[in-house]
Amino acid sequence: MENPELAVSSCSTHDDGSLRSYKRHSSVCQEGLLEDQLRRKLKFFFMNPCEKFWARGRKPWKLGIQLLKIAMVTVQLVIFGLTNQMVVAFKEENTVAFKHLFLKGYMDRMDDTYAVYTQTDVYDQIFFAINQYLQLPNISVGNHAYEKRGAEETALAVCQQFYKRGTICPGNDTFDIDPEIVTDCLYIEPMMSSDNTTVGKHNLNFTLDFHRLVAVQLMFNLKAINLQTVRHHELPDCYDFTLTIVFDNKAHSGRIKISLDNNIAIRECKDWHVSGSIQKNTHYMMIFDAFVVLICLASLILCTRSVVKGIWLQREFVSFFLYYYKKEVSFSDQMEFVNGWYILIVISDVLTIVGSTLKMEIQAKSLTSYDVCSILLGTSTMLVWLGVIRYLGFFQKYNVRISWDLRAVASHPNTASSITQCDEVLLLRCYDLPGLLFLWMDCTGTIPCEVSLSEHGFRMPFFIDQWR
Amino acid sequence: MENPELAVSSCSTHDDGSLRSYKRHSSVCQEGLLEDQLRRKLKFFFMNPCEKFWARGRKPWKLGIQLLKIAMVTVQLVIFGLTNQMVVAFKEENTVAFKHLFLKGYMDRMDDTYAVYTQTDVYDQIFFAINQYLQLPNISVGNHAYEKRGAEETALAVCQQFYKRGTICPGNDTFDIDPEIVTDCLYIEPMMSSDNTTVGKHNLNFTLDFHRLVAVQLMFNLKAINLQTVRHHELPDCYDFTLTIVFDNKAHSGRIKISLDNNIAIRECKDWHVSGSIQKNTHYMMIFDAFVVLICLASLILCTRSVVKGIWLQREFVSFFLYYYKKEVSFSDQMEFVNGWYILIVISDVLTIVGSTLKMEIQAKSLTSYDVCSILLGTSTMLVWLGVIRYLGFFQKYNVRISWDLRAVASHPNTASSITQCDEVLLLRCYDLPGLLFLWMDCTGTIPCEVSLSEHGFRMPFFIDQWR
Amino acid sequence: MENPELAVSSCSTHDDGSLRSYKRHSSVCQEGLLEDQLRRKLKFFFMNPCEKFWARGRKPWKLGIQLLKIAMVTVQLVIFGLTNQMVVAFKEENTVAFKHLFLKGYMDRMDDTYAVYTQTDVYDQIFFAINQYLQLPNISVGNHAYEKRGAEETALAVCQQFYKRGTICPGNDTFDIDPEIVTDCLYIEPMMSSDNTTVGKHNLNFTLDFHRLVAVQLMFNLKAINLQTVRHHELPDCYDFTLTIVFDNKAHSGRIKISLDNNIAIRECKDWHVSGSIQKNTHYMMIFDAFVVLICLASLILCTRSVVKGIWLQREFVSFFLYYYKKEVSFSDQMEFVNGWYILIVISDVLTIVGSTLKMEIQAKSLTSYDVCSILLGTSTMLVWLGVIRYLGFFQKYNVRISWDLRAVASHPNTASSITQCDEVLLLRCYDLPGLLFLWMDCTGTIPCEVSLSEHGFRMPFFIDQWR
Amino acid sequence: MENPELAVSSCSTHDDGSLRSYKRHSSVCQEGLLEDQLRRKLKFFFMNPCEKFWARGRKPWKLGIQLLKIAMVTVQLVIFGLTNQMVVAFKEENTVAFKHLFLKGYMDRMDDTYAVYTQTDVYDQIFFAINQYLQLPNISVGNHAYEKRGAEETALAVCQQFYKRGTICPGNDTFDIDPEIVTDCLYIEPMMSSDNTTVGKHNLNFTLDFHRLVAVQLMFNLKAINLQTVRHHELPDCYDFTLTIVFDNKAHSGRIKISLDNNIAIRECKDWHVSGSIQKNTHYMMIFDAFVVLICLASLILCTRSVVKGIWLQREFVSFFLYYYKKEVSFSDQMEFVNGWYILIVISDVLTIVGSTLKMEIQAKSLTSYDVCSILLGTSTMLVWLGVIRYLGFFQKYNVRISWDLRAVASHPNTASSITQCDEVLLLRCYDLPGLLFLWMDCTGTIPCEVSLSEHGFRMPFFIDQWR
Repeated sequence: MENPELAVSSCSTHDDGSLRSYKRHSSVCQEGLLEDQLRRKLKFFFMNPCEKFWARGRKPWKLGIQLLKIAMVTVQLVIFGLTNQMVVAFKEENTVAFKHLFLKGYMDRMDDTYAVYTQTDVYDQIFFAINQYLQLPNISVGNHAYEKRGAEETALAVCQQFYKRGTICPGNDTFDIDPEIVTDCLYIEPMMSSDNTTVGKHNLNFTLDFHRLVAVQLMFNLKAINLQTVRHHELPDCYDFTLTIVFDNKAHSGRIKISLDNNIAIRECKDWHVSGSIQKNTHYMMIFDAFVVLICLASLILCTRSVVKGIWLQREFVSFFLYYYKKEVSFSDQMEFVNGWYILIVISDVLTIVGSTLKMEIQAKSLTSYDVCSILLGTSTMLVWLGVIRYLGFFQKYNVRISWDLRAVASHPNTASSITQCDEVLLLRCYDLPGLLFLWMDCTGTIPCEVSLSEHGFRMPFFIDQWR
Repeated sequence: MENPELAVSSCSTHDDGSLRSYKRHSSVCQEGLLEDQLRRKLKFFFMNPCEKFWARGRKPWKLGIQLLKIAMVTVQLVIFGLTNQMVVAFKEENTVAFKHLFLKGYMDRMDDTYAVYTQTDVYDQIFFAINQYLQLPNISVGNHAYEKRGAEETALAVCQQFYKRGTICPGNDTFDIDPEIVTDCLYIEPMMSSDNTTVGKHNLNFTLDFHRLVAVQLMFNLKAINLQTVRHHELPDCYDFTLTIVFDNKAHSGRIKISLDNNIAIRECKDWHVSGSIQKNTHYMMIFDAFVVLICLASLILCTRSVVKGIWLQREFVSFFLYYYKKEVSFSDQMEFVNGWYILIVISDVLTIVGSTLKMEIQAKSLTSYDVCSILLGTSTMLVWLGVIRYLGFFQKYNVRISWDLRAVASHPNTASSITQCDEVLLLRCYDLPGLLFLWMDCTGTIPCEVSLSEHGFRMPFFIDQWR
Repeated sequence: MENPELAVSSCSTHDDGSLRSYKRHSSVCQEGLLEDQLRRKLKFFFMNPCEKFWARGRKPWKLGIQLLKIAMVTVQLVIFGLTNQMVVAFKEENTVAFKHLFLKGYMDRMDDTYAVYTQTDVYDQIFFAINQYLQLPNISVGNHAYEKRGAEETALAVCQQFYKRGTICPGNDTFDIDPEIVTDCLYIEPMMSSDNTTVGKHNLNFTLDFHRLVAVQLMFNLKAINLQTVRHHELPDCYDFTLTIVFDNKAHSGRIKISLDNNIAIRECKDWHVSGSIQKNTHYMMIFDAFVVLICLASLILCTRSVVKGIWLQREFVSFFLYYYKKEVSFSDQMEFVNGWYILIVISDVLTIVGSTLKMEIQAKSLTSYDVCSILLGTSTMLVWLGVIRYLGFFQKYNVRISWDLRAVASHPNTASSITQCDEVLLLRCYDLPGLLFLWMDCTGTIPCEVSLSEHGFRMPFFIDQWR
Repeated sequence: MENPELAVSSCSTHDDGSLRSYKRHSSVCQEGLLEDQLRRKLKFFFMNPCEKFWARGRKPWKLGIQLLKIAMVTVQLVIFGLTNQMVVAFKEENTVAFKHLFLKGYMDRMDDTYAVYTQTDVYDQIFFAINQYLQLPNISVGNHAYEKRGAEETALAVCQQFYKRGTICPGNDTFDIDPEIVTDCLYIEPMMSSDNTTVGKHNLNFTLDFHRLVAVQLMFNLKAINLQTVRHHELPDCYDFTLTIVFDNKAHSGRIKISLDNNIAIRECKDWHVSGSIQKNTHYMMIFDAFVVLICLASLILCTRSVVKGIWLQREFVSFFLYYYKKEVSFSDQMEFVNGWYILIVISDVLTIVGSTLKMEIQAKSLTSYDVCSILLGTSTMLVWLGVIRYLGFFQKYNVRISWDLRAVASHPNTASSITQCDEVLLLRCYDLPGLLFLWMDCTGTIPCEVSLSEHGFRMPFFIDQWR
């Protein structure tokens, strides 16, 4: 009787009726006192925070912690989203820049039709890419540099794959082929000398046998530093780009598709020095993250306690029912005692704690796993919102308004562009569709009270009504 | 009893029933005469113009004024929309022309992908823009001229922003940076001499350190006169364009986005002379605007009077109720006496008066604030339509038809292109959505009469029915 | 009683009930015999062809004529559509060809953004168009030729419109303008000499004052013969193209929009000679058209007779009603006797007769008004289909299927491209929408029988039921 | 009584009711025993496999075979789809490559606007295509070769079609034409000599009279081998391309549309040699196909037997009914005994057997009719899925889920691109629409049980209920 928990009893007008029916019932069977005690325990257990406060004056601590958490977690996600957006934008813009630098005649939005059809065009494209690579420091407007292995810079590899043996005579409908594929590579090192001699057919021993050719691959590594974070008082990251330009002749259809693939790795910079106030700002942010972790730990402990108490009450009720009525309580009725939303909040708290720790590591530049962190924080924020929506579910009409506000928050133009936010918006939209449907049905009065509750609260109050 | 005002009593079939219930009621309580007097006062107060005419022969002056006002305000808005459209089109076409003049290789509909990727392209773009600026009078087909400060023409400013100190070596993963940004500007004055020497790297001391570069900005001012209004018998305006071409290298991603921003100010021309009939036409238009202001003043006074009378009747009713029944009248019942639509009409009238005054000033070329005027006139016209829709609300079925006609008016092709009209159409569409929903619910018969009234009339007639 | 006409009595199960009510009625009032006679007359009048055949063995001649007419009119429209399509395609392709020939750098689908922004571009465009015009016979791949006035060929007119007086100094915010527009033209005649000297600034005295310039217009006439009809065994038409290239500088915004307007007139060729079988084919087609005219005349006469008889019966009924019951027959009840669908068929027949006569004239090459003919034939075919749908309306369930088949016919890919067919399909779609809505309501059973009839048959059988 | 077959009796709760009604019925009429026997026979006949197992322990062999068949047929279709996709992609890519090789200035996605407008452009295009053809072996990146007739290579044919006689003077509105079309061809053989002399107006006697010209056609044959199948361990096919470039001047509108038509024939290669493991893989695949044929034969025999038994039972029932009740059994009731789904399965089995045989022939490279095979296998797989859906129809709620899974299978990205799969997905979508509508109606409870059955099972159980 001391620790009853959160419950839903929004159809309070039904209480009088069920009370009366209960009175009639109790006059028939005389288990009386113990049943009445358990009944009141259950009633309190299934109350919402508001009713608990009115009934016994219990202050809604848990509700307060959830509200504080939701505010902090959302702020944290928006801040991380803004940082992550810079990372995503830097990746995308570099890929676009590489396409314009290394693909001859490339224009925006023609990736799917970018192909060459004649032998001279293939040589032109290859030599164009090689020359652009050799002159990169004089051409590029970004901070691109060759990767260094020790003292010398890594070379560009021009690899051609061809069938080992092949005599193909389509004119006679005959061919003699060995489908084994041989790869032959040529390495071209960035010339340190300042002479502007371009590479071409005349000074590079490179010929292609188009009848046997399967693919040509140009592979090289570039490095860059994402400086723009400096202006947002964060430390820059170092990027490794592994670029692969593929001339795909697998089909031998007369069309060689050209694609540029940019494999990006983010690493901490080795040796850096920045003047000014970046350090301090990072410290403040870390303190905020640590506070989020503490709040989540508190919420985690309180919700776990509620779940445990629910299970205890369930056992007590099952044994009472078996003893007095000689009846098993059905599994679905037993599940009424386990509040699915508490479990959701627990999961969300765990995700937030892990995500916040990761975020602190990223800010300290000891880790660069932006994607994992954004998935963790994004998922946890979504769950915490869903959890609070349920927690506030005793004012059913507020539900939809909250979910709309949520969407407004989530569709913030800057944050929505980063990956996590997109996911979240999608998930919210999924949630909204049944929500709106539900609202519509509620308005037209076609659904009874019970379904309405179960829709929002994941529960069938059929069994509860019997006991009120 | 002499001045009862507009009301809604569309469910007239309920009257008989409530009358009977009233008779039974009056037999029980003997307050009799005074109550009956107040009851009739209230009934008359909540009548609509049509019923008032049938009941006591009161001619619907206010309705007439509203109908006249709606016609005149709409005509006024359409006329202003046509003028404003020329202003908007002139602004947009100039911006497009500047993009084609100052951005090398610019084509329509490529604003979002317009960028350069190599160092030589950056220099080319900058020198192209400078040369085009220097030769503008010989190139442009419009009436573009340099801005003059006193006798000499203003210069073009080429400003580069870069990090104060920066040694960035992505190859070694090291950097040493001072995030403070330094701006360095170069001013190029339009050469008055007729020699066609172009500016380039050879004769201009201008180099960029791309590793440290954050942005390059080209800023210059141009002036123009919107002559086409002359042909519509209106006086031309003078325009100041503050152009900024930004080469954005914030991200250092190898992609420098180029954007042209055109900041437009409209000013009265200082010294002008036009032959012919422009002046007369402006006079006629001003007389029309003045008449609109007079009509709106009349409507404003009549509606304010009605609101005041409503508040007096409310006080009388509250004191009567408290004296005889010893009961407080609830706040929501008290609000029944304040007709929200009168307040809407009052707001709309104030906006129209201010807007029309502004329009007269614009026509007299003493002001050029087209945007503010279009917002004022557009909003007021929308409100006046909403108000009249309500005013005519006693024929509920006409509501939707009117709102459809409204939309037809608002979507007039010429006027819809100007900003205000767009706003209006959007707002009307917002209004239409609940309207259509409401119509649908009305047809299916799922909503009772009271809700229907409150939806349209902002009122709950629950309390009224008791008294009829 | 001898000539009862087409009627609708689809609710035949109601007959027994109304018969019984009639019997009770006749026992009360003793007008007896005359009323009974009129009643049977009316009943027969409102029968459908099928019921008339069962009742008195009257063969449905009119139904047969309608069915024959619908088949012939549709065949006629499809044949005319195929001819008309060639005309429309020739017009469109010529316009596209002229744009490519006379507009420098024109590409497909850029009409709305085709503009120039510099003074040299304006001169280039003008001289390009002039040179292309002068060399047209050597350039064009079509049968284009200059128009001849007597012996010599018509000249190209280069007209510039400018403000009469204008001193515009945007730099000082001053202008002095006379808004009167002066037009100044220059005529360039096609050179018959074979020298390929191009026209340009050097040998043509043509300068533009861009500050005052309002528009430049290049106007010239070309002629062509649509030869492809020869291959479809039809006689070719001669085409006059009046081309106007407008350089629009009205706004003085720095952007001169260029548009090419092609005004097309179709005329009979003066003097032609074609070898082979074209003449015979035209004769057969004319015989078919004449037969359509005959059928439509028959249908016209029969339907007019029915309408006249309906009006006679109406008068008889009104006078009977006035005499025996002393009651006026309401206007809506009187309108029951005028079958709206007969009137529709009459209109359709008149249109077909006029359209077919026009078609014969076009085939004989004494007229070239393709557009008027297509509107006449298209509208009449649509009406005849609607009329027959109604005529067959006694099997209500067939209605929708017929309209679907109709749409399948109308959306025939070849014919749908010509103007008329498009109109028809649009109109059919308009008809279909209520049709489908009606079907849906019919299925769900929400509409009573009477409304269903009136929807399809344009009549309220409320009054008829009383009399059956 | 020994061989009753599959039936639907999903409304099992109705059984008790109908049993009771039957008892009352049997007390009235005394045909008793024989009727009871037939009744039980019928009841067993209309049972589903599950009920048969519970009733008499009959194991659902047929159901097992169908489930095995559906798995194997789907796997087979997916494998064939992947092979077929390579064929389709090779065809499409070759066509794209030819357009880029032989059409001057061709760019992707401009097929509908690709046209020339001047005489020089027409000559340029023709000579460009001829030169590209002559130099093809040095230009093409694919395995393209000239077709050989004996020792020498086939020539490119340049054919121009023109009116036999034509004097067209649009300037005078006169023409004298003979619509007979003459075709004049010029043959250009690939030069074996290595000299790179290009063909042009100077060395080729080729002129066009544009006034009379109807069309120019360039026709030539090329051959290629689809090598990429080698990498998927399948044998390559040889392809014959018959290319036709058409310059269409039929309309004489000044616009000559250019289109390239590629007619593709797949043939077995004559003489080939491939090193490695291709042969083995083909053998395994053939064994799988043979097994599919066996399974389908078994299913075919079992279903045919069931259909035959249904017809026997129908005859027995008809004669019993005629003898005892002196009543004819209506045709629709008789059709109850013929299970439409069995016939569907039989058709599907026949198609699978033919398709699998064809597939084996294709794999053995003795046939190349990919299209026919894909239509056969695709249709049969669709039918087998529909059949099994029906077979599992006794769990009605599973229907929709199955059809969704089906769609997931069918919309597999790789296979969906081949022609057959597209058809199938379309058909499935057609099936799904009523399915979803039905599901929705089922949920809302607006349709009675009988309609539900007939919708899914193609039967009206009205008659059956009488007998239960």
